[in-house]
Amino acid sequence: MDRLISIAQRCGAFHIRGIVDLKRYLVARQKEVDRALDRFLPKATTRPATIHRAMRYSLFAGGKRLRPILCLAAAEACDGLTKSALPLACAVECIHTYSLIHDDLPSMDNDDFRRGRPTCHKVFGDGIAVLAGDALLTIAFEIAAAADAWPRYDLRTMFREISIAAGSRKLIAGQVADLEGEGKRINRAQLRFIHENKTAALLTTSVRLGAMSANATPTQLRAMSDFGYALGLAFQVIDDILDVTQTSEKLGKSAGKDAAAQKATYPAVLGLEKSRLEAGRLTRLAHGALRPLRKKAETLRALADYLLERDY
Amino acid sequence: MDRLISIAQRCGAFHIRGIVDLKRYLVARQKEVDRALDRFLPKATTRPATIHRAMRYSLFAGGKRLRPILCLAAAEACDGLTKSALPLACAVECIHTYSLIHDDLPSMDNDDFRRGRPTCHKVFGDGIAVLAGDALLTIAFEIAAAADAWPRYDLRTMFREISIAAGSRKLIAGQVADLEGEGKRINRAQLRFIHENKTAALLTTSVRLGAMSANATPTQLRAMSDFGYALGLAFQVIDDILDVTQTSEKLGKSAGKDAAAQKATYPAVLGLEKSRLEAGRLTRLAHGALRPLRKKAETLRALADYLLERDY
Repeated sequence: MDRLISIAQRCGAFHIRGIVDLKRYLVARQKEVDRALDRFLPKATTRPATIHRAMRYSLFAGGKRLRPILCLAAAEACDGLTKSALPLACAVECIHTYSLIHDDLPSMDNDDFRRGRPTCHKVFGDGIAVLAGDALLTIAFEIAAAADAWPRYDLRTMFREISIAAGSRKLIAGQVADLEGEGKRINRAQLRFIHENKTAALLTTSVRLGAMSANATPTQLRAMSDFGYALGLAFQVIDDILDVTQTSEKLGKSAGKDAAAQKATYPAVLGLEKSRLEAGRLTRLAHGALRPLRKKAETLRALADYLLERDY
Repeated sequence: MDRLISIAQRCGAFHIRGIVDLKRYLVARQKEVDRALDRFLPKATTRPATIHRAMRYSLFAGGKRLRPILCLAAAEACDGLTKSALPLACAVECIHTYSLIHDDLPSMDNDDFRRGRPTCHKVFGDGIAVLAGDALLTIAFEIAAAADAWPRYDLRTMFREISIAAGSRKLIAGQVADLEGEGKRINRAQLRFIHENKTAALLTTSVRLGAMSANATPTQLRAMSDFGYALGLAFQVIDDILDVTQTSEKLGKSAGKDAAAQKATYPAVLGLEKSRLEAGRLTRLAHGALRPLRKKAETLRALADYLLERDY
């Protein structure tokens, strides 16, 4: 969050809806998401305490709340209320956190650090970490069941949206392809498959759910889908670049892990310079997708710029 | 299934709704569930094939389909159609299978065999097994989203029912308490907590969902809840007894594993004889719960008897 704030300060000229600047917006939304997550999650003392402490350890580990904030901003861009989008935003964050806990397991990426702290399995053991991920995935659907619905976007539609994005043809497909690509020469198409599914799918769903909570028009929803997809890919390309160019301290997780594990990354496949160009191209695509929303998408534009502004 | 059939043959006198006997009923329902699961699951060749092969390996490993059959039978007992209950029945079976895959992992119960075949992680590796479990849990919600709904039992109600039963205060709570109880002296109340949550919760939800799909009256739903709970506990007590008294070959999984792992079981806490009495008491409770449903609950009664008839 500190980096978010410092970038927001540099970009102090941003005026979202002419009232709040990006910094205040991000802080306010993050607090809103954190408070809601705290309400939705069982207390750390709920029996059995171990699982609830583990769920909360990972969920409140200082995540940027990028996906839920995008969900809320998408709702606003479609004239909706953040209050209506909040359960969906929190559901997406629970799914994101579960995927990180499981990805970090020794049988997968075997990561010891995440967001500057020991990973869930390093603190609670592998068994509890598996179950904490399971529990966060499960509670995501309980939380989503609290969402408001519309005739056009009923709970059935939203539940399908979430479960498909998180399922074996999207989020999990990306992780499987990533695992299977380790140590192998992979081409650009295979790399795209991984990033589309591992990152872009849930990001796209985050903004789509925000739009749905706002009873978006079909045009608005299409714009959000295109925006989320381009932004999600841009985000992952930048993440790959940062893994090469940054220190572990700055990243809050083990730097250079991707290269060490012979992971499929943009710099490994395209080289660093072409990866930077690709990140720029994708961010422009994201901006282009927002055009139909005109001024209402100012916050989403600012968020896209923030992503591109990250030090790389 | 063979054991089911042989018991059904011995109990050939069962007449369900005066038309079909238990054997035919079980075979027909199992086929119906298997066909539906096959339709709901992505093909084994869907990219990435590994995850879909792993999901199908465990889902089509010869499970008895006890939970989905109970769900369908509950729907019939409340004057509903099995067709309406089918998506919910399949969702529950996916959740049950996911929980078995994760429970069998080396970081949990470390089981090499399940239903007479090597466990998912022995065939596909630990990482893919974690993901196959995740994917089955996720697709359960996609499948459940295909369910018919009623004003009294809308999708919100059903989704809450499923996610709470599978979540950190029920199914996962039971597994956590089970893990934490290993090698420790636990009392009867702690043992009850494990079994209530690890087994009875999802079984209760199976019959409740069947009742909901049939737009059950509040009285019918209450009867189903009481029945599912008593039956779920009876089922687990019998499972514990079988682990002590049966061979691995007959069980299709490693016999005596519970004792070897110093697991919390009824025979370990109460002794074998008292455990048998408890199983009988719980089965009578289950029968009592069905009284308000009169003749309509014949199939559920026969299923409860089948559970008690298992060789122990």
